[in-house]
This record gives sequence, structure tokens and C-alpha cells, in this order.
Amino acid sequence: MKLVIAVIQDSDSTKLLNALVEKGFRSTKLSSSGGFLKSGNTTIMIGTEDEKVQTVLDIIKGECQNRNQFISPVSPMGGNADSYIPYPVEVEVGGATVFVLPIDQFHQF
Amino acid sequence: MKLVIAVIQDSDSTKLLNALVEKGFRSTKLSSSGGFLKSGNTTIMIGTEDEKVQTVLDIIKGECQNRNQFISPVSPMGGNADSYIPYPVEVEVGGATVFVLPIDQFHQF
Amino acid sequence: MKLVIAVIQDSDSTKLLNALVEKGFRSTKLSSSGGFLKSGNTTIMIGTEDEKVQTVLDIIKGECQNRNQFISPVSPMGGNADSYIPYPVEVEVGGATVFVLPIDQFHQF
Ligand code: NI
Ligand code: NI
Ligand code: NI
Repeated sequence: MKLVIAVIQDSDSTKLLNALVEKGFRSTKLSSSGGFLKSGNTTIMIGTEDEKVQTVLDIIKGECQNRNQFISPVSPMGGNADSYIPYPVEVEVGGATVFVLPIDQFHQF
Repeated sequence: MKLVIAVIQDSDSTKLLNALVEKGFRSTKLSSSGGFLKSGNTTIMIGTEDEKVQTVLDIIKGECQNRNQFISPVSPMGGNADSYIPYPVEVEVGGATVFVLPIDQFHQF
Repeated sequence: MKLVIAVIQDSDSTKLLNALVEKGFRSTKLSSSGGFLKSGNTTIMIGTEDEKVQTVLDIIKGECQNRNQFISPVSPMGGNADSYIPYPVEVEVGGATVFVLPIDQFHQF
């Protein structure tokens, strides 16, 4: 058995948890926050057999990988129209930091 | 030293923490929630010497083991009396998922 | 790679997180509470290369070590003036419980 601990963005957590359940993995979600500048992350713990670790990593990568996304800016409300950018802006979202830990014992009571 | 991580039901957490303190174990409680359908769980971390791991596992099993419990249904309030079950219902409560992790170093500052 | 898990007092968490960032370490903060009597602690997870574990431990010790602090008591408001202590009182603050865990795999996606 291994314990997979993944720190991901809040906005990716629901689809990651759903994807894990769909593939038969049980997980636990811990409230967490970034150490600096990065607020709103979530820590997911997944216990899994050694031979399924790669499957779990693939699911995390598939749902959470760092990627660019185009965001349509909202129109300015009473703001300075000169600084308004009327086209979608590319921003970086997602990302995952993942630790796979060895386990001495695993029990379910 | 080992680090024991136990995911248990919220409703079992107070008596588990009390039982651990009574036997001289220090623990830390993390807010957590289930990955799917199972809301309101709690994650407990306990650092312990190798030779006391079994004692910690016995305490967790004793306080949190999955068990059936009879719940008296509340009487229907303005509901359909035909569907009201006037006798106690057996439900499953508790349960614990426990990981025992090896530790390279342990420090108290 | 190692995963360092430190349970510290809430009041030390901001300066620890700042000190870690300043030295280039990324960390994640989990909401936690003590098992008994000790409320308001915080759990910090830091992933680091093996050769920097001692640096991380030194930072934690430097920011969080158990120490005595003089607190000026507030003046009694409508209380018993006989029991009022008009000089600073020495109290114990801080402290850290630290686990260094081995890691099988580390990934960033
Ligand atoms: Ni294994
Ligand atoms: Ni040991
Ligand atoms: Ni290593």
C-alpha cells in the first residue's frame, strides 16, 4: 500500500474527487492553504495498492495539471474605459504537488 | 517512531481523542471530509514509538469500529403517516481507515 | 525527497511560513487542533530534498521553539483588585512537534 498526498487547486478538487470515485479510489479531503500568495488549495489523501499508484497519478495529472486558460474579462462598471481589455486573457490555472509515501501497515476497522 | 493517520467519523472523534489522552498519547486533529457521499469525517495524526503502535490501533478499533446502531425514528410532522416506521431502525455507524507510516526523524522543539 | 510535517502553535505560523518562503521552501498549511487542552495549532507540510532537511528543521526550531514570554496582565475591570498581579507574568509559548517522512515518489504536474 501507498499513501498518495496531493496538494491541488480548490477549483480542481470536485472533478478530481469525482474522477477518483469513478475509478474506485477512496479519498479524503483536508482543508489547506498555500504558504504564500497561493490561497485556496486543497490536500487530498488517497490510500492505494502499489500497482495502482500510477493510475492515481494519471488521474491527478489528467484533472489538475497546470494549464493555460482564456478568461473573458468582465466589462468595466464605472471604471476607466481606457484600461479595459476587450479580449479574453490567458491565465495559468491548476497544478498539483504530489507525494507518494510508503506505508508500514494499513487497516480498516 | 511511527506516524499513525486515522480517518474516522466526526461522531467518534471526541471519545477517540479522550481515550488517546487517557493512555498518554498526543494527537492532532485535522479537518477533513470524505471524497464522496461520506461527509463529516475527521483525520487524526498520532506520533508513537514502534512498540506502542498496536496499542494505538487497539484504541482506534475500540472507539471507532464500524458497528450497527438502533436509531429511534422521529415521529412524522405533517408527513405521510403511511410511510412512518414506528420502530427503531438499524444503521451502520463508525469505521476507521488507518495508515501507519514510517518516520525518518522525530523532533520536539 | 522528504516530507516534513510540523505541528506548531497558530501564533507562530505566519512567521514560520514567511521564513520558509524567504529561504525558497514551498509549504502547505492544514487546519488542525490539539487532541486535548491545547487548542489552535496548525500543521505545516514541507516537501524538500534530503540535503535540505536540516535547514528546514533549523528554520522551524528558530521560529517556533518552546520559550518563555513575559505577558503584561490587563488591569482588572470590576474584578477583585486583591487578586490582580500588577507585574508581567512569564508564560510558555510556542513549541513544535516535527515528523520527517520518507517519500517514494515526488511529482509536480
Ligand atoms: Ni505496499
Ligand atoms: Ni521508528
Ligand atoms: Ni529522497
